Formats: sequence, C-alpha cells, structure tokens
Amino acid sequence: MAQPFSQNVVALLEKKVFANIATIMPDGTPQVTPVWCSHDGTNVVFNTARGRQKDVNLNHDPRVSICLVDPENPYHYAEIRGHVVEMTELGADAHIDSLAKKYLNLDAYPYRKPGEVRVIVKIAPDVVHVVG
Amino acid sequence: MAQPFSQNVVALLEKKVFANIATIMPDGTPQVTPVWCSHDGTNVVFNTARGRQKDVNLNHDPRVSICLVDPENPYHYAEIRGHVVEMTELGADAHIDSLAKKYLNLDAYPYRKPGEVRVIVKIAPDVVHVVG
Repeated sequence: MAQPFSQNVVALLEKKVFANIATIMPDGTPQVTPVWCSHDGTNVVFNTARGRQKDVNLNHDPRVSICLVDPENPYHYAEIRGHVVEMTELGADAHIDSLAKKYLNLDAYPYRKPGEVRVIVKIAPDVVHVVG
Repeated sequence: MAQPFSQNVVALLEKKVFANIATIMPDGTPQVTPVWCSHDGTNVVFNTARGRQKDVNLNHDPRVSICLVDPENPYHYAEIRGHVVEMTELGADAHIDSLAKKYLNLDAYPYRKPGEVRVIVKIAPDVVHVVG
C-alpha cells in the first residue's frame, strides 16, 4: 500500500527543489538529469515529453532513483528509490503549467515546443533515505 | 583516447559543485546521491569508502552517469555519462582531505570514521551534455 511521505520529505518536495532523476538507458547505462517536481502525498510527480530520454527509458525499465538536494543546504538531501506507477498525458499540460508557477512564478510553461506531447510521471517510493 | 574536458565543464568541476552520481545496484535498480568531486583534466574524480553502496555498485557495474548542477544557476548543468577507469586506495586519504579543503576550507576531512578505507574513483566520460 502507498505510504505518505514523511513531513521532512514533503517539506523538501515543496521547495523549489530539483529532482535529479536517474533512469536506465535501454543499453543498461544510468542516465541522470535535474527536473522540476511536485508530489501528490504518496508519489513524486514530474513531467517530461513523449520521445524524451526519460520517456524512452521509463517505458523500457520503470525503476528510478531520485536525489532531492535542499536548495538551501546541499548537505540535506533525500534519496528516493522507487518505480513508475503511472505515465499519462491526461492533465500533463496543466501540470507543467503548475510547475512553471512553482519554479518560475509564471502562469504558463514558457518553453513549450510545437507538437510536444507532455507526460506526467508518477513515482512511488520503495526506499527513502534522508541525510543531513 | 582520453579527451580533455571542455572549458565550461572544467569551470563547473572547479566550483563547489555536487556531483549527483548515478550507479546501478546489483539488482539493476539505479542509485543516485550527491558527492564532492574533482577532476584530473580527463576524468571526474570522487572519493568513497570500501563497502559503501557506490563501491559495491561500481565493482559490479562500472557504468555511471553524473549530473553537475551549477551551484550558482540550477538551469546550467552538465550530464556526463561514463565508466570507471580506476578505483584505488593509493592517495585516497590525501584526496579526501583536498576535497575537504575545496568544499569546507578545512585542511583535513572531518568525518573520517575509525577503520574506514577511502577509495578514489576516476570516471572517464563517454558522452557529455551541457545544458543552459
């Protein structure tokens, strides 16, 4: 059953924290890049686009690791190892706009590309380590 | 043949930048945590200890991905995908002290544990992406 995040992880996720999300390339190589993120209480939620490396990798292997480093203190971080529970286009445009609000204080995501199909990715935690 | 890093990657590596290093757990799950780092011109160099998760993982699979996010601008980052070319205890105590100097301005690493055996890990880049 899904467990809610602890208060200190929720506090991190509600900052303008970048989620360094590690996925596995189809050839087995790790891949890690920083992304905006939110949460729904029990899952880390981020947003990518169809055809991007994270979309390709997660359709191939749903396992991820996420490192959230506190933007106010680099010695305080959480590592969340988990797996994708949902990838959906439903509501993904509104979600990227909400992330633009959180991170840039803009009402609409300013980097949208013509033809881009946004995807919400929800990750359930399996193991959470909080350090610092 | 080893290629030297571009000037913008060297500039990032010489800041107090944290390397979010993704490795593969023996069960195939990705793992990512932030570590101090340096470089030798052609390799990213970091320091772990025998028995730590990164030591275990890299002895099992030498492939890594490193995300270096500019501490002064989170929208400027480099992703370096590469592989371990050397893991050695030789000089590893002096190296962790040099990282304590770089990151904490201390002459000696203050978190050394009794019996801990430090290890230098050198990672050669295979693919480098710089964003922002």
